Amino acid sequence: MNKKIYIGNTASISKIFTEQDVEKFAALSEDRNPVHLDAEFAKNSIFKQRIVHGMLSASLFSGLLGEQLPGQGTIYLGQNLKFTAPVPIGEEITATVEIIDIRADKPIVTLRTYCKDSKDNLVIDGEAVVLIPNP
Amino acid sequence: MNKKIYIGNTASISKIFTEQDVEKFAALSEDRNPVHLDAEFAKNSIFKQRIVHGMLSASLFSGLLGEQLPGQGTIYLGQNLKFTAPVPIGEEITATVEIIDIRADKPIVTLRTYCKDSKDNLVIDGEAVVLIPNP
Repeated sequence: MNKKIYIGNTASISKIFTEQDVEKFAALSEDRNPVHLDAEFAKNSIFKQRIVHGMLSASLFSGLLGEQLPGQGTIYLGQNLKFTAPVPIGEEITATVEIIDIRADKPIVTLRTYCKDSKDNLVIDGEAVVLIPNP
Repeated sequence: MNKKIYIGNTASISKIFTEQDVEKFAALSEDRNPVHLDAEFAKNSIFKQRIVHGMLSASLFSGLLGEQLPGQGTIYLGQNLKFTAPVPIGEEITATVEIIDIRADKPIVTLRTYCKDSKDNLVIDGEAVVLIPNP
């Protein structure tokens, strides 16, 4: 088994999603909800400002899993997400994956996956399950 | 409660993700796994060809929930995903959301969320939970 694969190992990435990023994701996902795109609408919403799509913030887990932990070759089997707080455009968030379970019988690993904002508030929590074909 | 909100109601969207879409998503998610971006690498992988990021296909659920069912104002509370088969670049997929539960005490709705490819193979399955602030 890959030396990185042990309970408690983590990998993180920080990123600020800009207005342009949110507009690109809106086009990709066909999610043009005005709370993401329209400053005037967003100001009058419960969020008070434009927010990043939850699935865009969550996409950072895909990068961490596929590039860092476990890394290249990883096959994504599943992802559970709870969106616990909104992320305003321009807010720095940090996504982290942490190995919490390694199956004894198969090279299948479960990771806790979470995102925090710059004030250390949890904005996304969840778990990913991945297969490592050549552990 | 919004007239659209009843058990069994569905909304769908079809989309073909192109090489350019996958490249844009790679930059947004920081997921530059070569199975998505490098044709030569992908040809020698178990997938035999470049595939769409699972989280990019899954992003279509965000658009359906936020724009169609329940529609604007929907607050995304959670999303569970199982990636059951790969999606090659250029393959048409159809994402569907279907209301499967409506809480009696709060305006919280659970939807089955799934994606099929053009041969009707299930490529993603899961569930979303959303809040409708002004039902």
